[in-house]
Amino acid sequence: MNGEPLTILLVEDNRDHAELVMRTMEDFQVANSIIHVEDGEVALNYLYGRDIYADRTIFPVPHLILLDLRLPKVDGLDVLRDIKGDETLRSLPVVILTTSDAERDMAMAYEYHANSYVTKPVNFDDFSKLLKDLGFYWLAWNRHPW
Amino acid sequence: MNGEPLTILLVEDNRDHAELVMRTMEDFQVANSIIHVEDGEVALNYLYGRDIYADRTIFPVPHLILLDLRLPKVDGLDVLRDIKGDETLRSLPVVILTTSDAERDMAMAYEYHANSYVTKPVNFDDFSKLLKDLGFYWLAWNRHPW
Repeated sequence: MNGEPLTILLVEDNRDHAELVMRTMEDFQVANSIIHVEDGEVALNYLYGRDIYADRTIFPVPHLILLDLRLPKVDGLDVLRDIKGDETLRSLPVVILTTSDAERDMAMAYEYHANSYVTKPVNFDDFSKLLKDLGFYWLAWNRHPW
Repeated sequence: MNGEPLTILLVEDNRDHAELVMRTMEDFQVANSIIHVEDGEVALNYLYGRDIYADRTIFPVPHLILLDLRLPKVDGLDVLRDIKGDETLRSLPVVILTTSDAERDMAMAYEYHANSYVTKPVNFDDFSKLLKDLGFYWLAWNRHPW
């Protein structure tokens, strides 16, 4: 990690899952801050810096987006398509983090250029291990142009 | 890992780097087999199952592509663009593994929908650690639809 504060945008409507992600990331000190939003519309408002999210010093562009698929208001796949269709947002890594192991969801996610697709393990220890590995890979090893 | 044999296609013209990748992956038992090709043209022939690569029982579709950028015959970015423009190959994870930390290379790689971009650490131990983390993340955690 290169010293800059690392931010994750977590788009997750299941509060238990969101809490687990945030607690684990904090325990492993994976990110400096995790911003949690509960639906696809707010996720897009955040990413485009709209409305209350206009101040980038308070609401920075994240280094990693963890995106659930089934979301209220705007579905996860639509959020993904929007991000990857936008010139300024496209290079943000989007990891789909979902309970769905449906082949169709995976195929659609890659069709819309998700960077990666992982399924939430049922077992707590496995979930923690996944989050640690995932956070470390994307925030410490993966490089980005901005 | 789900028991199926895991294959990495390594596209790398620097033989020292290729050897290091293969040795490390073997040491950590990350993949069942690593297929190493030295230029972009052969990489595409392999991926499309052309010519000597027609038999998929011997030359399977890889689970992960590690792609260098500066390559003879067909450049890495052109290989990437070809893979991500092809309906059947698009969902294969392509990780750019390069010495280049040029902003332009990163931006172009994400523009062409690279799944991830990592730079080769100069230090041997760091390089080994990267390969272990990278292999584990993409082969054990990342899911794919096929």
